[in-house]
Amino acid sequence: MSDVADWWSTAIIDMEPGRIAMRGHAIQDLIGRVSFPQMIWLMTRGTLPTEAEARLLEAALVAAVDHGPQAPSIAAARMAVTCGLPLNNAMASAVNMLGDVHGGAGEQAVELYGWIDRAGGDLAVATAAAIDRWQRERDRFVPGFGHRFHKPVDPRAPRLLALVDEAAAAGTVSGRFATIGRAVQAELNARKGTALPMNIDGATAVIYAELGFAGPLARGLFCLSRSVGILAHAWEQMEQGGRNKGPTPPAYRWRYTGPEGGREDG
Amino acid sequence: MSDVADWWSTAIIDMEPGRIAMRGHAIQDLIGRVSFPQMIWLMTRGTLPTEAEARLLEAALVAAVDHGPQAPSIAAARMAVTCGLPLNNAMASAVNMLGDVHGGAGEQAVELYGWIDRAGGDLAVATAAAIDRWQRERDRFVPGFGHRFHKPVDPRAPRLLALVDEAAAAGTVSGRFATIGRAVQAELNARKGTALPMNIDGATAVIYAELGFAGPLARGLFCLSRSVGILAHAWEQMEQGGRNKGPTPPAYRWRYTGPEGGREDG
Amino acid sequence: MSDVADWWSTAIIDMEPGRIAMRGHAIQDLIGRVSFPQMIWLMTRGTLPTEAEARLLEAALVAAVDHGPQAPSIAAARMAVTCGLPLNNAMASAVNMLGDVHGGAGEQAVELYGWIDRAGGDLAVATAAAIDRWQRERDRFVPGFGHRFHKPVDPRAPRLLALVDEAAAAGTVSGRFATIGRAVQAELNARKGTALPMNIDGATAVIYAELGFAGPLARGLFCLSRSVGILAHAWEQMEQGGRNKGPTPPAYRWRYTGPEGGREDG
Amino acid sequence: MSDVADWWSTAIIDMEPGRIAMRGHAIQDLIGRVSFPQMIWLMTRGTLPTEAEARLLEAALVAAVDHGPQAPSIAAARMAVTCGLPLNNAMASAVNMLGDVHGGAGEQAVELYGWIDRAGGDLAVATAAAIDRWQRERDRFVPGFGHRFHKPVDPRAPRLLALVDEAAAAGTVSGRFATIGRAVQAELNARKGTALPMNIDGATAVIYAELGFAGPLARGLFCLSRSVGILAHAWEQMEQGGRNKGPTPPAYRWRYTGPEGGREDG
Repeated sequence: MSDVADWWSTAIIDMEPGRIAMRGHAIQDLIGRVSFPQMIWLMTRGTLPTEAEARLLEAALVAAVDHGPQAPSIAAARMAVTCGLPLNNAMASAVNMLGDVHGGAGEQAVELYGWIDRAGGDLAVATAAAIDRWQRERDRFVPGFGHRFHKPVDPRAPRLLALVDEAAAAGTVSGRFATIGRAVQAELNARKGTALPMNIDGATAVIYAELGFAGPLARGLFCLSRSVGILAHAWEQMEQGGRNKGPTPPAYRWRYTGPEGGREDG
Repeated sequence: MSDVADWWSTAIIDMEPGRIAMRGHAIQDLIGRVSFPQMIWLMTRGTLPTEAEARLLEAALVAAVDHGPQAPSIAAARMAVTCGLPLNNAMASAVNMLGDVHGGAGEQAVELYGWIDRAGGDLAVATAAAIDRWQRERDRFVPGFGHRFHKPVDPRAPRLLALVDEAAAAGTVSGRFATIGRAVQAELNARKGTALPMNIDGATAVIYAELGFAGPLARGLFCLSRSVGILAHAWEQMEQGGRNKGPTPPAYRWRYTGPEGGREDG
Repeated sequence: MSDVADWWSTAIIDMEPGRIAMRGHAIQDLIGRVSFPQMIWLMTRGTLPTEAEARLLEAALVAAVDHGPQAPSIAAARMAVTCGLPLNNAMASAVNMLGDVHGGAGEQAVELYGWIDRAGGDLAVATAAAIDRWQRERDRFVPGFGHRFHKPVDPRAPRLLALVDEAAAAGTVSGRFATIGRAVQAELNARKGTALPMNIDGATAVIYAELGFAGPLARGLFCLSRSVGILAHAWEQMEQGGRNKGPTPPAYRWRYTGPEGGREDG
Repeated sequence: MSDVADWWSTAIIDMEPGRIAMRGHAIQDLIGRVSFPQMIWLMTRGTLPTEAEARLLEAALVAAVDHGPQAPSIAAARMAVTCGLPLNNAMASAVNMLGDVHGGAGEQAVELYGWIDRAGGDLAVATAAAIDRWQRERDRFVPGFGHRFHKPVDPRAPRLLALVDEAAAAGTVSGRFATIGRAVQAELNARKGTALPMNIDGATAVIYAELGFAGPLARGLFCLSRSVGILAHAWEQMEQGGRNKGPTPPAYRWRYTGPEGGREDG
């Protein structure tokens, strides 16, 4: 029997009938005393953050909740509702889409910043080398920078960086990763000869790296944050009604590029 | 072109290059100024709550984050990670499971409370009638009450109700739905002749109803809350490693109840 | 230990090291000997169908594979690929959408036909009564009939009904549900004063009911069938490339219907 | 308007009201005339296969339908049903899990075989080099070989290889990838000093490679095949009933490895 009990082991939660404890804290001691961002930190990291740390995490969570129904995740949530799905399934359909391209850039940016941090030495040199390596080993797109819609500036990034600067001035964080993020932006701008703005992923990655979150958690936290927008849109669609809503109105057709035929064969 | 633009319409978010506004607030004015629960409220309801309202919402969000790897949702998230899925797909797999039985009780309890609220008249009479109607029209299980593990008390419920009482005393909420929740509990206990404890769904439904959230949003908010535990467990599993982890250790087999055979036919 | 083994019990599959048996048949005796539709039947029903039964099932499976990228499920699969998801996650995102509205009509039509079948007596009377009951208890939309695009005829339905007629003439099936399906169509046409064509769900439901599949399996079999189109579209999108593809081109915006504001507050 | 129409383009399906054509074939010409495996081929490849080719594909599809409730995908489907989800959501939850570890080995094996094929020269040398490269660049696990349960032989593999040999003798396929698969097995056995059996992924990858399917489609076809078992188990669970069924019986708990505490703090 022990092997079955051992098959599932966790340091997150302990229970007996009438008792639930997260990371060693009875749940009734957490409810009403810790904020939701503190609880998110406790669950994923194992300890409670200071209030200042939690506020910085909170800013990142607030910033990324939504980017409109043009985003595949939000569109999927709204479509799902018109297919008759309740909110849990609509939310799942949407969160599933937050993959390497749509939600994974934060995770990748944390990793890129980490390369530069660990390289040490001259920051500009380390930054250029890290970008070169990223484009050689991973992808021509440098994660966290550039936006096809928000030009020249993604309004979320400077606000988030300002909060990191404040937190660094107060000693909450080191400010090391804000410096690194700005170095990446400077290097990219120099290469492109134009402003390539830090986007939401690049900015939240600065915060997550400052606070010590591992790369995969940056993606996970983005999923938590965007789940708020997903829920809001799914619920709005539920109230709007609509059945079987595809990407464009029914009268619009797609472009067919295949072989002729399609009438009665032979 | 107008019909395509009209095909997707929303009162949640407006954008131009360089500008993102949620419910009429520029995103840079929200970041660092509103709490994550306030943002959740703004996105789903359209207006900003008071801080007292947001704190009560926050208590509900904190309370429901996790119930251990025995829950199908948490187990699914952990399994998904051992199948090689990144966190977004693991979270989606888990949230998808929060259906009528596993996550929908909060929505149902909000509805049941609403029946009692709107019936008016004598509370005990209205409560008994509503329970009768629920069991006749919907399900023999009354949503939000009883727990197969936490006997005699789910430790989250009394703590949440105490916070509602405090909020009612302060005039933040009316306290009407706490009264209704307790009336349901009293009626069920009288019928069963034993304590049938209000569970997490019954208690958070009191809060959501007090704060004016529609039933489906109670399910959606539960999904947001449980996503925290799902993320924590998925990440813990990722750090533990493991490949292709099924529900029980490999040496355990299931019970086969089908026809004999299975050797070479004929 | 026995309770753990008993927790998962199944009549579908039995295994020992080196042996896999489905429904009592060694897997090596099935591979290369039964068709894929026969295997689908064996797995879901427990016995092997005749070849004639399997061919009728096969016709339904072939008929429903795709309805173009305008369908939410197909759109979701293609979007998912542009978010960086591999095919399994893209397929899951799409199948998830085949809910009550988008994929559930087959299940509902099997249920409606079953009401008529079990009512017995005069077919026209029973049909009218069943439609009345459906619209009173369930939904104003009668499942399996009408199509917002294919007017006046969904080309899949008459072909499938012709195959049912052939199978009935050969004694493979009774033909009872083809008669019922046509009675529903006649009644709806009489009520509307116009041709309301039987659609793919109404026609495959005739086949599933003739073959004795339970209603929920009609939905499941539709999911299997549509998974083929989903896979084909996801793969085509993977070959086309594209990153973060929303429902409409980036230059198109949605219509914003919320409050003014969004510039710097206050 | 053209850009919206162009945003979704496909060579798979064309439609007008009353007409549906797949790859240039009117749907009514396909229904009842092509087998389900032929339709799968047509949709994913663009042309109709010969009957012999379709039969080999069919063998692979039949072989992989199920591996019992111990598999995370099947367990997830059954759990999902006990959470109140209908079959489409249960199937999606399960297919989502068929990731790099659980369902992706077929795709990887097709890629590995392709390396060996394209290397040319002495087969044993090319095979050893490809395995070395795989373990250096990808993973210590060589995809498609070894099974933690089926020792010494996965009964599906020799049967599938025998069918490939028959098809090669008949000129349907070249037999090149059966030879390559056996070379990988021989090399792995030599390295391990023990039989490391080709498993279902290694064997179906031989078939998919022989038939010219790209690697990602090997994963997609596995998803189609396993969807059958997923559907069968989900449906069986629906008939069994059960509510909120976790991985082990309620009396079993997981092992808690975190900090002490959990009683009233302070």
